[in-house]
Amino acid sequence: MSSHRDLTIQNSLVIFCDLQVGFQKSILHIEEILDAALFLRKSARLVSIPCLFSEQWPEKYSHVVDTLEAREEEIFSKRTFSLMGSPTASELVVSKKRECIIFAGVQSHICVQQSVLDLLANGFSVFLVTDAMGSRRSIEHTMALESMKQEGAIISTTEAVVFQWFRSVDAPYFEEFQHLKRPQQ
Amino acid sequence: MSSHRDLTIQNSLVIFCDLQVGFQKSILHIEEILDAALFLRKSARLVSIPCLFSEQWPEKYSHVVDTLEAREEEIFSKRTFSLMGSPTASELVVSKKRECIIFAGVQSHICVQQSVLDLLANGFSVFLVTDAMGSRRSIEHTMALESMKQEGAIISTTEAVVFQWFRSVDAPYFEEFQHLKRPQQ
Amino acid sequence: MSSHRDLTIQNSLVIFCDLQVGFQKSILHIEEILDAALFLRKSARLVSIPCLFSEQWPEKYSHVVDTLEAREEEIFSKRTFSLMGSPTASELVVSKKRECIIFAGVQSHICVQQSVLDLLANGFSVFLVTDAMGSRRSIEHTMALESMKQEGAIISTTEAVVFQWFRSVDAPYFEEFQHLKRPQQ
Amino acid sequence: MSSHRDLTIQNSLVIFCDLQVGFQKSILHIEEILDAALFLRKSARLVSIPCLFSEQWPEKYSHVVDTLEAREEEIFSKRTFSLMGSPTASELVVSKKRECIIFAGVQSHICVQQSVLDLLANGFSVFLVTDAMGSRRSIEHTMALESMKQEGAIISTTEAVVFQWFRSVDAPYFEEFQHLKRPQQ
Repeated sequence: MSSHRDLTIQNSLVIFCDLQVGFQKSILHIEEILDAALFLRKSARLVSIPCLFSEQWPEKYSHVVDTLEAREEEIFSKRTFSLMGSPTASELVVSKKRECIIFAGVQSHICVQQSVLDLLANGFSVFLVTDAMGSRRSIEHTMALESMKQEGAIISTTEAVVFQWFRSVDAPYFEEFQHLKRPQQ
Repeated sequence: MSSHRDLTIQNSLVIFCDLQVGFQKSILHIEEILDAALFLRKSARLVSIPCLFSEQWPEKYSHVVDTLEAREEEIFSKRTFSLMGSPTASELVVSKKRECIIFAGVQSHICVQQSVLDLLANGFSVFLVTDAMGSRRSIEHTMALESMKQEGAIISTTEAVVFQWFRSVDAPYFEEFQHLKRPQQ
Repeated sequence: MSSHRDLTIQNSLVIFCDLQVGFQKSILHIEEILDAALFLRKSARLVSIPCLFSEQWPEKYSHVVDTLEAREEEIFSKRTFSLMGSPTASELVVSKKRECIIFAGVQSHICVQQSVLDLLANGFSVFLVTDAMGSRRSIEHTMALESMKQEGAIISTTEAVVFQWFRSVDAPYFEEFQHLKRPQQ
Repeated sequence: MSSHRDLTIQNSLVIFCDLQVGFQKSILHIEEILDAALFLRKSARLVSIPCLFSEQWPEKYSHVVDTLEAREEEIFSKRTFSLMGSPTASELVVSKKRECIIFAGVQSHICVQQSVLDLLANGFSVFLVTDAMGSRRSIEHTMALESMKQEGAIISTTEAVVFQWFRSVDAPYFEEFQHLKRPQQ
C-alpha cells in the first residue's frame, strides 16, 4: 500500500468529483466540503499541481460551482458514475502521468467510491480527502470510507495532504500558502 | 477479498434476514431499516435480481413484514440462527448460482452475523447493507459490523450497492429507478 | 485469525477480569458492564462452560462483586496486570484445555489488554465481549479495543457469543436460556 | 507489526512533538492533551526513560510549555514538519538506541503524522499516545489516526503505555507512581 510519504508535488494529481451546483441542496455539510475543497484547489494551484473536475450528467446537475474557478480544460463530463467508465475522462487522467491521486468530492458512496475503486484497480495510489467529501446521508459517507479503506485507499484530509506536499516551512511558496484561508469546521 | 467492482446485476442475490413482524418492537431504528430494505427490494425487482427472505422461528416471530411484498417462493423458514444451518435454506441459496450476496436484516449480531460468516466460509462474497441492518442495542450492531469486517465481509449501504448495479445513467431501467423513493434517514 | 464460527460450548472458557468491588466507583458505565457480565455468567453456567474470575491485588481492591456468584475454585488473584504473568493463574487457564477464550472485565487498557495480548501470543483465540468491558475513561476503552484488534483479538458482545454457542432454537437449554434477563443498555 | 508486549522500560523513548506555547490557542482539547502529556512525562522520568521535545519553528511558535519541564538537552528545533527531516533531530533520535517510540503531541495530521510515518519507515515501532495528541479540527485528528494505523503505528493511550512499562504492582517505583495525578478527561 502507498503512503503519505510517497506524495510529492511532482507526482500528485487532484480530482474534484461532481462538485456541481445541482448537488448542493442534497449533500450533508456541503458548505464545509466546499470550504475544504476550495482550500485544496488554491493550495494545488499555488504549487502548480494539476487539477481535474468531473461533472456528472451536467444537463441535469449543471456545472462545477463557481467558487472553485475550474478552467474549461480542467473539466470533463461523464454519464457513468465512475470517471474511469468514460474513455475521454479515463484518458485525461492517465495523460497526466501522476501516480498519486488526491480525491475529493461527492457523493462518497456513489461516484467517489466507484471512481476510487477503479483508480486503485488501475494501479493509482488514492488519497481520500475526507473533509472535502460527502453524501446525502451520514451513514453513506462513513460506510463508503470503510469500504474504500478495505480496498487500499489511504485516509487523509486537506491539510494532511498539503503539508505533506510542502514538508518544510522553507519550501517554495510556503510563505504565500500561509495566507490562504484554512477550512474552518 | 471481493470488491464492489465485482458486483453485477447478473451475479447478485439479495437476502433479507428475519425482517419479521415479531422483531419490530425490539430493534433499534427499525423504521429506517425497513425503509432502506424496501428501497433495496424495489431496486432489485426492477432489474430482476433474485431476492430471498428468511423467517426465524415463524411460529414465534410471525412472518416477513407486508410492505416488502415477499412472494411465497422467496420465503424460507429456519430454526438455526445461521440460514446455512438449514439444509433447505442452504440449498436454496446455492441453487441461485450467484457469487455476490447482498445482505440485509436483523439482528446484526445474531442471525445476520452467523449467516454471513457461514456464507463467507462457503466462498460467497458478502456485501453488508449496513443501513438496512440492526440489533436491539447499538453496541451489538456496531461490534457485529467490526467482527464481520474482520472476516472479510464488505461494508456497504443500499444506494452504494444499487448504483454499482446501474453504473451509468444510461443503464436500462435507470429512468424508472429514479422514481423510487430513497431512504430518508 | 479465528472466527465466531469456531466457538463451541466444548472449546470455550470465560474469563472475567478484575470485576472487583474496589473498581466499581471509577469505571465508566460500570452498571451496564456488570449487567452484561452477569448475563454472560448465567448463560455460561447454564451450558456448563467453565468460568474464571481474576482479582487484581485483592488486599487493595477487594473481591469479585457478589452478584456474579463466583465460586472459590473459580477465583485467582494476581499482582501482575496480565493474568499470564502469574504462574498459578497461567497454569489454571492452560489446565482448562480450551482454545477459545471469551474475555470480559476491566480495565480494557490495562489488565484486559495485557492479558489478552499474552493469551493471543500463547496461541489462544480471544473473543472480546465489548459490552462487558470498560475503563475509567472512554478514550482508554475505545483505543484499547483498536489495539487488541490490531493484534488479532476478535470483536464481540455477550449475545453474539452466547447465540453462537446455541446456534439453534432447538439446542439443549435454549428454552431455559430464554428466561434469562438480557443486558438492557 | 510490533505489540504492546514488546514495550519495556529499557527499549522505550518518549517523543513530545511541538507542544509549544504558540500552538495552544488553536488546538482542540489542548488542556486534556497537556494533562495527559504531563502524566506521561512524569511517569517516564520516574523510571528513567529518555524523553525528547521537538519545537517547530520556535521563532514563530515559541517554546515547549513550561509545565512539561523540558530540559535544554532534551529539546531540539526543526523546520521540516517531520522530525526525521532534520539531520540533527534524526541523529538525536537514533543516538538513543531505543526501538520503541512512544509518540505524543500536535498536530496529529501534520508534524505528528509526517514524523511517525518516517519513524516507521526507519524501522522503529511507534506507539501513538492518542489521548496526548490533537489537531485544530476533530476530523483531522481522527483521520490521521486512521492513516497512521494503516501504515503500522500502534494505537495506545498514556495509561496503557505506562502500565505496560510497570507490568506489576511489585515493580520498582510503582508505589511512587501511584501518587502521580492521572489524566482527568
